[in-house]
Amino acid sequence: MKFRVEKDTMGEIKVPYDCYWAAQTQRSFENFKIGIEKMPSELIKAFAILKRSVAKVNNELKKLDDTKTNAIIKACDEIIEGKLDGNFPLAIWQTGSGTQTNMNLNEVIANRGTEILGGNFREKRLIHPNDDVNMGQSSNDTFPSAMHIAAVLEITDKLLPSLEKLKNSFLNKEKEFMDIVKIGRTHLQDATPLTLGQEFSGYRSMLEHSYTQIEKSLDDLRELALGGTAVGTGINAHPKQGELVADELTKFSGKKFITAPNKFHALTSYDALVFSSGALKALASNLMKIANDIRLLASGPRCGIGEINIPANEPGSSIMPGKVNPTQCEAVTMVAVQVHGNDAAIGFGASQGNFELNVYKPVIIYNFLQSVRLLSDVMDSFRIHCVDGITPNLEKIEHNLKNSLMLVTALNPYIGYENAAKVAKTAFNDNSSLKEAAIKLNLLSEEEFDKYVDPKNMIKPKE
Amino acid sequence: MKFRVEKDTMGEIKVPYDCYWAAQTQRSFENFKIGIEKMPSELIKAFAILKRSVAKVNNELKKLDDTKTNAIIKACDEIIEGKLDGNFPLAIWQTGSGTQTNMNLNEVIANRGTEILGGNFREKRLIHPNDDVNMGQSSNDTFPSAMHIAAVLEITDKLLPSLEKLKNSFLNKEKEFMDIVKIGRTHLQDATPLTLGQEFSGYRSMLEHSYTQIEKSLDDLRELALGGTAVGTGINAHPKQGELVADELTKFSGKKFITAPNKFHALTSYDALVFSSGALKALASNLMKIANDIRLLASGPRCGIGEINIPANEPGSSIMPGKVNPTQCEAVTMVAVQVHGNDAAIGFGASQGNFELNVYKPVIIYNFLQSVRLLSDVMDSFRIHCVDGITPNLEKIEHNLKNSLMLVTALNPYIGYENAAKVAKTAFNDNSSLKEAAIKLNLLSEEEFDKYVDPKNMIKPKE
Amino acid sequence: MKFRVEKDTMGEIKVPYDCYWAAQTQRSFENFKIGIEKMPSELIKAFAILKRSVAKVNNELKKLDDTKTNAIIKACDEIIEGKLDGNFPLAIWQTGSGTQTNMNLNEVIANRGTEILGGNFREKRLIHPNDDVNMGQSSNDTFPSAMHIAAVLEITDKLLPSLEKLKNSFLNKEKEFMDIVKIGRTHLQDATPLTLGQEFSGYRSMLEHSYTQIEKSLDDLRELALGGTAVGTGINAHPKQGELVADELTKFSGKKFITAPNKFHALTSYDALVFSSGALKALASNLMKIANDIRLLASGPRCGIGEINIPANEPGSSIMPGKVNPTQCEAVTMVAVQVHGNDAAIGFGASQGNFELNVYKPVIIYNFLQSVRLLSDVMDSFRIHCVDGITPNLEKIEHNLKNSLMLVTALNPYIGYENAAKVAKTAFNDNSSLKEAAIKLNLLSEEEFDKYVDPKNMIKPKE
Amino acid sequence: MKFRVEKDTMGEIKVPYDCYWAAQTQRSFENFKIGIEKMPSELIKAFAILKRSVAKVNNELKKLDDTKTNAIIKACDEIIEGKLDGNFPLAIWQTGSGTQTNMNLNEVIANRGTEILGGNFREKRLIHPNDDVNMGQSSNDTFPSAMHIAAVLEITDKLLPSLEKLKNSFLNKEKEFMDIVKIGRTHLQDATPLTLGQEFSGYRSMLEHSYTQIEKSLDDLRELALGGTAVGTGINAHPKQGELVADELTKFSGKKFITAPNKFHALTSYDALVFSSGALKALASNLMKIANDIRLLASGPRCGIGEINIPANEPGSSIMPGKVNPTQCEAVTMVAVQVHGNDAAIGFGASQGNFELNVYKPVIIYNFLQSVRLLSDVMDSFRIHCVDGITPNLEKIEHNLKNSLMLVTALNPYIGYENAAKVAKTAFNDNSSLKEAAIKLNLLSEEEFDKYVDPKNMIKPKE
Repeated sequence: MKFRVEKDTMGEIKVPYDCYWAAQTQRSFENFKIGIEKMPSELIKAFAILKRSVAKVNNELKKLDDTKTNAIIKACDEIIEGKLDGNFPLAIWQTGSGTQTNMNLNEVIANRGTEILGGNFREKRLIHPNDDVNMGQSSNDTFPSAMHIAAVLEITDKLLPSLEKLKNSFLNKEKEFMDIVKIGRTHLQDATPLTLGQEFSGYRSMLEHSYTQIEKSLDDLRELALGGTAVGTGINAHPKQGELVADELTKFSGKKFITAPNKFHALTSYDALVFSSGALKALASNLMKIANDIRLLASGPRCGIGEINIPANEPGSSIMPGKVNPTQCEAVTMVAVQVHGNDAAIGFGASQGNFELNVYKPVIIYNFLQSVRLLSDVMDSFRIHCVDGITPNLEKIEHNLKNSLMLVTALNPYIGYENAAKVAKTAFNDNSSLKEAAIKLNLLSEEEFDKYVDPKNMIKPKE
Repeated sequence: MKFRVEKDTMGEIKVPYDCYWAAQTQRSFENFKIGIEKMPSELIKAFAILKRSVAKVNNELKKLDDTKTNAIIKACDEIIEGKLDGNFPLAIWQTGSGTQTNMNLNEVIANRGTEILGGNFREKRLIHPNDDVNMGQSSNDTFPSAMHIAAVLEITDKLLPSLEKLKNSFLNKEKEFMDIVKIGRTHLQDATPLTLGQEFSGYRSMLEHSYTQIEKSLDDLRELALGGTAVGTGINAHPKQGELVADELTKFSGKKFITAPNKFHALTSYDALVFSSGALKALASNLMKIANDIRLLASGPRCGIGEINIPANEPGSSIMPGKVNPTQCEAVTMVAVQVHGNDAAIGFGASQGNFELNVYKPVIIYNFLQSVRLLSDVMDSFRIHCVDGITPNLEKIEHNLKNSLMLVTALNPYIGYENAAKVAKTAFNDNSSLKEAAIKLNLLSEEEFDKYVDPKNMIKPKE
Repeated sequence: MKFRVEKDTMGEIKVPYDCYWAAQTQRSFENFKIGIEKMPSELIKAFAILKRSVAKVNNELKKLDDTKTNAIIKACDEIIEGKLDGNFPLAIWQTGSGTQTNMNLNEVIANRGTEILGGNFREKRLIHPNDDVNMGQSSNDTFPSAMHIAAVLEITDKLLPSLEKLKNSFLNKEKEFMDIVKIGRTHLQDATPLTLGQEFSGYRSMLEHSYTQIEKSLDDLRELALGGTAVGTGINAHPKQGELVADELTKFSGKKFITAPNKFHALTSYDALVFSSGALKALASNLMKIANDIRLLASGPRCGIGEINIPANEPGSSIMPGKVNPTQCEAVTMVAVQVHGNDAAIGFGASQGNFELNVYKPVIIYNFLQSVRLLSDVMDSFRIHCVDGITPNLEKIEHNLKNSLMLVTALNPYIGYENAAKVAKTAFNDNSSLKEAAIKLNLLSEEEFDKYVDPKNMIKPKE
Repeated sequence: MKFRVEKDTMGEIKVPYDCYWAAQTQRSFENFKIGIEKMPSELIKAFAILKRSVAKVNNELKKLDDTKTNAIIKACDEIIEGKLDGNFPLAIWQTGSGTQTNMNLNEVIANRGTEILGGNFREKRLIHPNDDVNMGQSSNDTFPSAMHIAAVLEITDKLLPSLEKLKNSFLNKEKEFMDIVKIGRTHLQDATPLTLGQEFSGYRSMLEHSYTQIEKSLDDLRELALGGTAVGTGINAHPKQGELVADELTKFSGKKFITAPNKFHALTSYDALVFSSGALKALASNLMKIANDIRLLASGPRCGIGEINIPANEPGSSIMPGKVNPTQCEAVTMVAVQVHGNDAAIGFGASQGNFELNVYKPVIIYNFLQSVRLLSDVMDSFRIHCVDGITPNLEKIEHNLKNSLMLVTALNPYIGYENAAKVAKTAFNDNSSLKEAAIKLNLLSEEEFDKYVDPKNMIKPKE
């Protein structure tokens, strides 16, 4: 590989010739050869949006000239569009303040900005990574700001829409299945009936609750540390910087952002991410319950519950028709497990701040963005490849319902509790249906039984 | 011990003569000899409030006569007041629907109610546990309702007030310490200064954020499953029951409750508790950071940071004055660790529902109420025995601040960056102060140094 | 209540007249009104065993006279026998070194020892809590020693025997069910057959693996901190103390203990408990899988899998026979969830040591002993009230097996893969049995089918 | 991109022309567009080693001819060497049995094997993915076998060597620092002295304990599911397959493997990985404590503890010499947090098996291998870039030690406890040294003080 030589206060260092990053990035790259996890692209993008906004504000405040400002903005736009992918090689497992990733951004923007201005950054930079790109900022306020920006954008643009779509899919099924009466189950034991639509309404309601919980968790994520600089006092920053940047970000992104009312909090506490991760965990728990239900309802084809059919997306058993592995459900439940693990890591990291800084920022945002990404993706996948294709197995539903002994409770008003219990006991012992038992015991005619035992009357409250 | 004989559908069983519980409670007591954790008193109280309100509504709906209603209400009031403590012997580790605890309530209320009516429950009950006390209810909708009621009451009446008081203690310290300039620390390394009041404002802000997060999490906890009965359809319940009971509960408790808009959700999802536990975990993480800061700031007396003093509540070293173990901080951080563990258990349990029921209810509410109780108590203890007694160690603060090399940045405008760096380097190498180094290098007079290097000017942004 | 006045270096304090504890215990009791969790009785017992052994060794080393030694030993024996229960009122949530619990032991032993010697501890102690009972010790080496002793005793005397018994119950069922061929299930979908005994052999093997894992984890728990005193150097202890006490403990308890080879490790690292808790978590995960299988296999009575029957321990539905809620399984899975949460807390606490001490000792041992106790108890309960009473539902097993389409694979050698697939497809579409389909397609006679399709030949490898 | 058309039982599908994978891989690739996490390279490698060994055994058993066997072996070797990287595109978040990854291996090996035999797999395969490469196997026994193989190889070849090296680094420092007496600290408060070498011996001992714990956890990982095929019965496998493959694997890898004694356990329980992850978590907790100590000991340069120096690997403050951020420590503690989160996910996944299969395999092994990889890498990085470069700050150590009041205990034998306490109190109040106070009080001469107060005598037990 071809290299160029860069210098920083520690001396010379060789950097790959073609890349835009410089000495500080390279040093971190070499000093932290740990794992395979790079800074998430969502964070890099959020960082570029932030750098762009700060440059704009610095220009408005007359601290940065138009030429440099425009070049910085253009370089940031290229990062946002993904054109400079490959220039952000740093590991999650670096300094806990994310300083070198802030420098990675500063270096790439400065060097690419130099090119945009017609310069050759390998010879002479026209834009300075620290003085210009990082003007009035510190890793300690930019990194947590980028964390919050990434969280808000990914939740708003990706997670909530996926959640909304999945909710709508369940809503459609709820309507479609509203009149299909089936046996209920509690403790995995047969219970009184409900409709398949009612069962699916529970799933829809779960997702609605998760939606509003996640939305509520956004409030605190909108607060940005920017303006706090190194320790929260805002030393070296303009007094209006935080506010103006939040406004500019709001304008640029279309999402509301505000400057954190207390910057000491903003540099040391990740309560907003812990709280939001709790909402993600609640969603994951809901999804796990839903996916488990669906695979149990689809179990079979012969020796399970088999009340619904799910789409067959992969070749199952070549010889055995009807064996459809619930692979999408399995992806959902695995993601749920991962989100639980991530939540543990996020909470742990958030508890470990000291004095003016928390140095677990990269591990916190890595886990948080993984949770958001996996939940978004898996809800899309689950919806497209499974939920939308669910059909009821009416024959099995009907069979189970008829077969159930719980319906006997409907006979109480007609033959009395004692006789009803006798019917159930007879059916259980004879392994027969309730109807057969009732007729055998000469308590009811077939017509009477059919008239009295109507599960449709057992699925709602009555005065 | 003296026993009486009770009967249920499984046959006879001996029950302690004096207690109010009956056969079903006794059976569960004997079948689940697991651990030492009993159903939390907060849950029993919430359950009694619920039973009281349902009786009232059943009376309004003309389903329960005045005599029985009044006796049930009186028995419930005695439970609420703690007069029947000792009558709720069941373990957390029972059936996952909490059925036997619902029956424990029903039995105790029916038997005590019988006494209130002048009867002798050992001979003939005047109130029936199922037909009267449990009228129109099921374990499956009462237990989750009691969980939410307990959560709302404990958070509102206990946790939030304790949080508010601790926040105010920090606010007082913030004001008291607002002008005490001290060294800042990031990465545990010396950084630019801030005031001790600013540092404490971060703690205050943490608690404010936690307060609003916990408040937000209350919304979904106000939704009650009651009215869903066995599987969520509301079979055997009056159509208005859910709504009327929520209104009655609101009136009785002074906290807002509503009937859950979807009962299938309400019987199977504990997303409201997972979400709320996430807020508790965020609070725990904030408290851990605060307590760690305080014990580090108080470390010493000679060989630590020692910038604050904390109250000595126990005999420390008898021979060594000034050795004050930060025992309250240690209790705080241990509670924080416990809340993290509890949150993991709550989320796990919440993910494991099947079909129309989640059978991890007792373990979920056990962990949740433990978190609420411990956080409330430890915030009170921490406030009273530690925070309110914190005093600054001005001498040490001043020493550290003066001694720090970070102040050199204030010289840049006067002697230039190069010379400022030279001053710092000289001080570092000579192990001297910046002032001594500046004078030694003939760059500044003592007067000039004192004029230029004023940490008070380094604690806020500047235009 | 009647009080007496005690004094310590902080001044006077009122102590309940009747109790054996003194000033330091009382102060901690008043300063830490947090939660309802007291120091576990298992830890108090282990502490008494330790104090007894140290007294014996101090006597051998001629540091403590025979009179005092014997009184201390007798007082310790009373604690071990539970005679002094009620004298250990301190909360888990105290100082993280457990100092006050060490003092609680010292005070109770000294005061009770004084009585044993015929003295009146309210007037004049004949045995000194620090000088005599705590001789050559520190909270910092006694508390972690008591933690390890309690862990070894509870695991050896309680957990492993319960595990062994449950394993044997499964072994018995394995043998009993060895020839009952049933359908297998993967992904909850019908798969090739196995015997019910084979299925239960998996449970037996799980418990065997857990047994050896837990046993392996005991090795490091046998290492005791005692002899390290305040910071691990052993200051104020006799050089042979650690070794002699370990020997004495081994002799007294019948379990092997050794003195920790490195006391700095022993005061700061709880890796032995984290590792052992990992083994407990693996057991909990195994139990969760087993309990989930059993309740799924017992699901029904009509609309589930229903291949086994479990004992009915509580009144189920009064009207519906055969509805047996798997309440013991639910207790097992709730305990499993709790053990997972506890493990998170233990690991977190163990990571937070600083310098010469870890101050999360009480929260670590609280969670660890709860895990051990719950697992022991729930395995006993599960065994007695569920596993031992499991019977196969032969009719349902046979029905499912015959009904399954997976058996078609046995026809390949006789009619070829293509025809076999055709049989399965026909059966699936007609909702008929494989046999019916094969006959309908004129591919086989009933006799041939019965001869070729023998599930008994599908349950083991073949050359 | 250029595509070719492949077929499976579900019909035609377009596959990238150049890649070796075929229809089933492609289908999974398209159906599971979830997240960015691919199957870990360590698992792919282990899978290839397994496939290689099974082919060899099948050849020995005369089931697979020499030509195909050799081609399969050669293709596997290429995978092991990393030559076919890029051919394993599947997500972690696929079916929970990892079926499509097994097929990915089968397809790549069959197609590459066809090429090796001179064929053109796009036209006609000479080796069949199922019949040849997957002969006598199932996803259900190969995937868990590959999980265990990967775990054993990565732990043995990567983790334990890194752990050993870090342990040796601490051992070297322990020896180097053995005579440097310093102040001890408990509760972050000054305590009796120890040597810096003793302090580091604690770290060394932690790593030794972790080493043996991890080693012990290997035992169960050596058990392989192979031979159990689809449900554990071994249907379609040769009776000796499991044993012969384990032997072949042992021979090929140089690590001991055995066939699992119970295959029903092996397909459904991941207790071996949970247990091993517990050992990894104990290591992570130990590393967190060590890294926290080191950054606290290195805190400063002026306003912290500052008793050691750590290497400066990145430019710190350009103007402030001596500010060295403990970035390597921060990477260590972030990894520790991640390992805790991973452990939660592993345990959760392991608890969720049903009947004959656990379908959380990919998420379990993903987290496990991430833990192993991160711990290995971060221990190397920490050792090279931090631990090996630690030097004592003798001046600060000496200053703190002399300054400490704890040394006063050494005066007890000479001037009595009361006078010693008076010396300490005077020193504390005057903010002077003990020596100054003793002289001021006329209790000792300077010579006497220096003779009596020798911290070197306070660092070990005495008879």
